[in-house]
Amino acid sequence: MKCTACKKEALIKLPRHNSTLCQECFQKFIQKQTLLAIKRYHMFAKDEPVLLAVSGGKDSMSLWQILHLLGDQVHAIHIDLGIGDFSRNSRLVAEEFARNQNWPLTVIDVKMETGYNIPETLKLTHRPACSACGLVKRYLLNRYALANHFPVVATGHNLDDEAANLLGNILRWREDYLAHQSPILPSFHAKLAKKVKPFYTLTDDEIRTYAQFSDLPFCDEICPLSQRAKSLDYKKALALLEKQSPGTKHYFWLTFLEINERIFQSHRPAVPFLECTRCGMPTTQERCAFCNIFYPIEQKENL
Amino acid sequence: MKCTACKKEALIKLPRHNSTLCQECFQKFIQKQTLLAIKRYHMFAKDEPVLLAVSGGKDSMSLWQILHLLGDQVHAIHIDLGIGDFSRNSRLVAEEFARNQNWPLTVIDVKMETGYNIPETLKLTHRPACSACGLVKRYLLNRYALANHFPVVATGHNLDDEAANLLGNILRWREDYLAHQSPILPSFHAKLAKKVKPFYTLTDDEIRTYAQFSDLPFCDEICPLSQRAKSLDYKKALALLEKQSPGTKHYFWLTFLEINERIFQSHRPAVPFLECTRCGMPTTQERCAFCNIFYPIEQKENL
Repeated sequence: MKCTACKKEALIKLPRHNSTLCQECFQKFIQKQTLLAIKRYHMFAKDEPVLLAVSGGKDSMSLWQILHLLGDQVHAIHIDLGIGDFSRNSRLVAEEFARNQNWPLTVIDVKMETGYNIPETLKLTHRPACSACGLVKRYLLNRYALANHFPVVATGHNLDDEAANLLGNILRWREDYLAHQSPILPSFHAKLAKKVKPFYTLTDDEIRTYAQFSDLPFCDEICPLSQRAKSLDYKKALALLEKQSPGTKHYFWLTFLEINERIFQSHRPAVPFLECTRCGMPTTQERCAFCNIFYPIEQKENL
Repeated sequence: MKCTACKKEALIKLPRHNSTLCQECFQKFIQKQTLLAIKRYHMFAKDEPVLLAVSGGKDSMSLWQILHLLGDQVHAIHIDLGIGDFSRNSRLVAEEFARNQNWPLTVIDVKMETGYNIPETLKLTHRPACSACGLVKRYLLNRYALANHFPVVATGHNLDDEAANLLGNILRWREDYLAHQSPILPSFHAKLAKKVKPFYTLTDDEIRTYAQFSDLPFCDEICPLSQRAKSLDYKKALALLEKQSPGTKHYFWLTFLEINERIFQSHRPAVPFLECTRCGMPTTQERCAFCNIFYPIEQKENL
């Protein structure tokens, strides 16, 4: 098996791209796909400071390394969720790598920011774990980006994440979520940073292989609170279908991106943004979901 | 466990309807759901002759019995596909039941109609087995309905069939199929019978239980040509999701029906019907797909 690009011994097959690649050419391939994604969606320019959310997992660690290789202005941020050993190990991976590479990293501790770590937060709300945790992370990321003048927040969400998310949104026909699902979420409001996902065309397997080929450290533990996450079920269902009909999940997600504007976005009613009466951040309600969790109103007013 | 309806000993749980039912009340429940489906979609009136496609499986055998119980004007039709023992056994079940009940049944033999049984037909076309077989069945059913003045053709497609079909259409974003997917397909043309699916709210399991409770004979073999059918993969994927989140497939299919007009049907370009230059049946091409299989044009003309 020869590398399609350089004719050396190939190590990996990419049936979707009809090629076999050696270690070096595979790494270049992943880097190029990332660059193409950034350009295709005008995610950010070379001179724009990008805030990269680094969990310590294979995706964000790989993206961190690739954005540095591509010469982007990256500042990493790790949010310590306070979920026992899982969070301790994840944080260590990110901190050690930043120190070794001499790359800027800010760590935010959820408990210090809100008074509650994620396990404690779950006692304040009826939301499922991943929903509450996602909300807290998004809020803190956006607040940090805003305070420190980062116009863009990047995350390591990949094709498998997005396809699973899409399947979940379709099964529940969440039209508003469908309309918004994209590799790029523009800044709809002066207090909302743009969100981008440069790995939206790459799979879990591809990124894992990239991280291994590149000797990148990463935390490979699954969050203990996500054991019952529906997203894992959606990934399993898609894996089953992908095995029977290779290409299924790529087609599902990438074709959705082509038709979304016409199908779901055209039906989206424009919801005006308000500013949260407590924290001033953008929200579609009187108070934002973050403040409703951490600063609940004692007695709900009768409206 | 008491029957929610009559307080006798219950035999079956229906969590979605928040009830437990005894054998008799379960049978009544299935019959009532069928009647409600017929009325909800104005499938047919009491005095309209209905042509019912009876494969010999649990769904069509149950629907046959229920439509008779409801006092509808049913004429059954069985299409002998010529797929070895599977077809022989299926035909026997339908013929014996018709004889025992003294109900009208017409049998059409695909080989006698076209010159080819289904296994032979598959050598004439590149279509997957279920696609070619479905096409032949739909054509022959419609032609028979037309020739014998049946305005409506009913089939036993159930909720699991439709949810699996919907998932397949969504994964491939087949917008035109999505726009058409419905418990009722109106007659778009004078030569097209209306198609209806009175079991669209009932699951495989519910109908199987109904057939068993009602001592209905049915052929429980899986078509040997459908072993690799994608629809089976879609059913498996949905079963996995249903197990983790009960109600998933109901919500997915029944909510789709509520939003389809707004989401997919509104984007459907109106394709004008032509009449096939060989057989005169409605088609969107110059010749219909049926004639293209069985009466291919030797040399394709250069257009």
